[in-house]
Amino acid sequence: MLEDITDVKIKNSSLEQLKELAEEARQKIISTVMKSGGHLSSNLGMVELTIALHYVFDFPRDKVIFDVGHQCYTHKLLSGRYDKFDSIRQFGGISGFPKREESEFDCYNTGHAGTSVSAALGIAKARDVKGEDFAVIAVIGDGSFNNGLIYEAFNSLRLLNTHILVILNDNGMSIAPTVGSMHEYLEILSENIEQKQKRDRHAKIFERFGFKYDGVYNGNDLGEMIDKLTEIKERLKTESVILHVATKKGKGYAFCEENPEITHGISACGSNGICEYSSVLGKKLVEMAKNDDKIVAVTAAMTSSLGLSEFFEKYPERSVDVGICEEHATILCASMAAQGMKPYYAVYSTFLQRSFDEIVIDICSQNLPVTICIDRAGVSGADGETHQGVFDLSFLSMIPNLTIAVPKDVAEFERMLEFSATFNAPLAIRYPRAGRKVFREKSEIVSGKWETLKKGGGKYAILACGERAITLALKASKVLGESKIEVSVVNARFVKPLDEELLSELKESVVITVEDNVLIGGFGALVAAYLSESGKIVKNFAFPDKFIPQGGISELMENFGLSSENIVGYILKNENR
Amino acid sequence: MLEDITDVKIKNSSLEQLKELAEEARQKIISTVMKSGGHLSSNLGMVELTIALHYVFDFPRDKVIFDVGHQCYTHKLLSGRYDKFDSIRQFGGISGFPKREESEFDCYNTGHAGTSVSAALGIAKARDVKGEDFAVIAVIGDGSFNNGLIYEAFNSLRLLNTHILVILNDNGMSIAPTVGSMHEYLEILSENIEQKQKRDRHAKIFERFGFKYDGVYNGNDLGEMIDKLTEIKERLKTESVILHVATKKGKGYAFCEENPEITHGISACGSNGICEYSSVLGKKLVEMAKNDDKIVAVTAAMTSSLGLSEFFEKYPERSVDVGICEEHATILCASMAAQGMKPYYAVYSTFLQRSFDEIVIDICSQNLPVTICIDRAGVSGADGETHQGVFDLSFLSMIPNLTIAVPKDVAEFERMLEFSATFNAPLAIRYPRAGRKVFREKSEIVSGKWETLKKGGGKYAILACGERAITLALKASKVLGESKIEVSVVNARFVKPLDEELLSELKESVVITVEDNVLIGGFGALVAAYLSESGKIVKNFAFPDKFIPQGGISELMENFGLSSENIVGYILKNENR
Repeated sequence: MLEDITDVKIKNSSLEQLKELAEEARQKIISTVMKSGGHLSSNLGMVELTIALHYVFDFPRDKVIFDVGHQCYTHKLLSGRYDKFDSIRQFGGISGFPKREESEFDCYNTGHAGTSVSAALGIAKARDVKGEDFAVIAVIGDGSFNNGLIYEAFNSLRLLNTHILVILNDNGMSIAPTVGSMHEYLEILSENIEQKQKRDRHAKIFERFGFKYDGVYNGNDLGEMIDKLTEIKERLKTESVILHVATKKGKGYAFCEENPEITHGISACGSNGICEYSSVLGKKLVEMAKNDDKIVAVTAAMTSSLGLSEFFEKYPERSVDVGICEEHATILCASMAAQGMKPYYAVYSTFLQRSFDEIVIDICSQNLPVTICIDRAGVSGADGETHQGVFDLSFLSMIPNLTIAVPKDVAEFERMLEFSATFNAPLAIRYPRAGRKVFREKSEIVSGKWETLKKGGGKYAILACGERAITLALKASKVLGESKIEVSVVNARFVKPLDEELLSELKESVVITVEDNVLIGGFGALVAAYLSESGKIVKNFAFPDKFIPQGGISELMENFGLSSENIVGYILKNENR
Repeated sequence: MLEDITDVKIKNSSLEQLKELAEEARQKIISTVMKSGGHLSSNLGMVELTIALHYVFDFPRDKVIFDVGHQCYTHKLLSGRYDKFDSIRQFGGISGFPKREESEFDCYNTGHAGTSVSAALGIAKARDVKGEDFAVIAVIGDGSFNNGLIYEAFNSLRLLNTHILVILNDNGMSIAPTVGSMHEYLEILSENIEQKQKRDRHAKIFERFGFKYDGVYNGNDLGEMIDKLTEIKERLKTESVILHVATKKGKGYAFCEENPEITHGISACGSNGICEYSSVLGKKLVEMAKNDDKIVAVTAAMTSSLGLSEFFEKYPERSVDVGICEEHATILCASMAAQGMKPYYAVYSTFLQRSFDEIVIDICSQNLPVTICIDRAGVSGADGETHQGVFDLSFLSMIPNLTIAVPKDVAEFERMLEFSATFNAPLAIRYPRAGRKVFREKSEIVSGKWETLKKGGGKYAILACGERAITLALKASKVLGESKIEVSVVNARFVKPLDEELLSELKESVVITVEDNVLIGGFGALVAAYLSESGKIVKNFAFPDKFIPQGGISELMENFGLSSENIVGYILKNENR
């Protein structure tokens, strides 16, 4: 039934048939995710609710926005993408997130938390101005509900004088279990499920903002969802509603139900020979914190995937997880540093974008010793455009007072963390999720000092930044060495400050930079600007000025021009000029 | 009494003496601000509350954080800065905002809205970890209270298991009157000032987050404030408190009380010959909106200072002011654009930083036709480090799909707005507050096409970006012309895309770039990177990698190396090599 499902067929189905459809969708999601990776448990929890939405509403005329978006698999299966579903999260395949360019059933792209209610309001406002008539629905998990954007959006509902439906999908989890007072409050509402009057009194917070609160219902009960949504659909003509539903993350797959955090994102590939930077961070911080009671670890709902679980267990009073609140987390770090603490803020590269202003104003303009540990830098893979970490070197390098380090391997990362202990200013250390290589060299970490890995003696020097770039550079240099073209290779482990001494003394006339960041504003651009009066030729290898889609790491690097072959090709062409 | 005031003297004063002190402080603030410019009405409203804080608490042992920070003048007068007060907001003088580097009485620098509660929590958390004992107070206006950061901070109070005092200084104003449901809610609390029971029931929102609510009190009544704060000081040992006070913005100065929006920031200099970019924006948008019913104007609490008052009056249904919620405003624009509207988001350069992630993900990764009108770009003057608009070209130019235009004068700005009407992709137009010049040239605006203002024929070309840079370039070229050194001058009015055709055909061997943005990641760096393989010499004039302090516009430009003399000097030195 799933194979050629349409909303018309859904609307003509009996409840029993829809339950079969749910089972079919659930099995399809499990089998696909086990093969291709992806978000399993959040999608399993959403099956019934999504079918009910398609039964009751008229998509794409009506609009649904999924917050963060990784829970949209059933929606994709129901909106003409069954055929392509096996290609999900793969290079050239369909996305694991909503994408306007993929289907008219996806009206707004998401990826980062907390944007759905704002987007629903904007879409509803546009509808009103244009005099159109359709329903707008935001589906948001309780994890995203911690984000400040929700408050900003709620605060403007009356002001915008429009009507939307917010479905609060409460499974008690961000990626880690949800924290904070709003979450406790939602729990109170859930506990009072049988005492309507008491619950309604408790639900006053939402009413203040102009929403009618309705809940808590079982989001995995298809019949209940259909009835409820049918009723609400009418009400939306005159009011805005929050529908609070409880769903079970991982519903229908025993392993997930028991281990929702582990299965939030499942990696498709094997694990031999791979070192996780996050485990190095976790172990090292635990060790350093033993002798330094100023060390604090801060995260925004990512404790385990950033490697901090052990730290949080051992030093609970020096551990802070504020939920999906990157801005608040950043200011907490700055203000604790202002009081003499030594905060480490661990975060994915892509989510660091959220606290850009606070990095500039709170941390760097006050020159406070916060260490930002940036995981998933460079391309991060299958999550695609909204999750690639290819911008961080650009938006960080322009900030005064910030030092930026990029380790060449996990061993160097560990030594950089040791270096950070006594470094008394803002520091960012940027690294990919995992590495395959530990290089031989181990020179002392000094701010702004690079490490020469290979002395060439010819006219070419490759300055490479981070493990992935260095691997390409060394491979190119080896290939060229076979043709008697000697190339120097430098581990440019500080993007800021640049090693100006090394740059000034460079004998080579052609300088090649390699990095897994975008070209504009990145490491290579800094080198080009520094050498702009030198008369040297500078050639940059970096990601182009594009949003990088989903795909495998090496697949993406190669497809966007980051390969040892291209470096070799450039040098050979230059030789033959 | 104010001249040599200390907290000890304050504590030993009678209420009558303190009232005299308040009067003296008020007069000092009025006379200073009328001379030097600055935030008048917000400071006049804060006099009694600040004196009461200094009477009751023990600064600098206890800590107070002022949200945004421009209401700290009385605090500065009471904490040893009376002597330097005349230098406030001037180059080399004391800041109009709290600055740790200025006094130990300032524990945390602020400048952008909504950070104070997070910072208070971080400071309190550090105190707890270190086993110290002092009070931590955040003073926040109802305008900032709209910002999502407040919700994130409130949501984590219980989690952090600490105690702070939040003083909600309610004057019903952001810079414009405060909007939104939270504001209406605060009004309800204020109206119920005489009905304690009803009010307490209303105050439940704050209790949910772990705060005891106490209010509303008269923040301009010194005796009441002292009594209340004395009582709360004790309570802070075991609980967190929100003290809701009402103050009158502009208190004690009739003109301000009647016109609080006008006097929020007062400009010190005269206005002859100066054109405001904001009035051009306002007039042009009103005109364009007549024929294009898709045009919407969006602002975050800045309607009047961005020139949008007339638009808001004429097209209320197409006008959105969401209060100080830059992130939400940005997503509203993206989502309205996704529904076929044509949104214009007007914002100060420095506050644009807040929505960096939403510009990347919501606007640009979806390639939506939102026009961002960036006012106060370049150095903005007396507000200093936290308000300079010198980063925007850097953090915007790295974003794929974004076109960045920089008009050379108000006339060109108007034509760029016309150009934007049919431009179907993300566009940023960046301009200073005001300009003095309208240049003669008026060539058609085409994306990525520059305009040659002067053909040299020699070996030097100056590529200048924006009015301030072009003024310097033309002046330098004129001076050099007198020494028979011919220099081309180009109006580089698109920072992205660069005019690659013009760059490739450049005959000149020395390319000089001029801009009022930081060097790193800015316009000059883009040019240097583009020409890095050309063998040409590229010399960049831009702001250095520093936070630029307060001062006059030309004073700051000159002090940081942006002068026609320096350009002339560079070329002469190059000639004599």
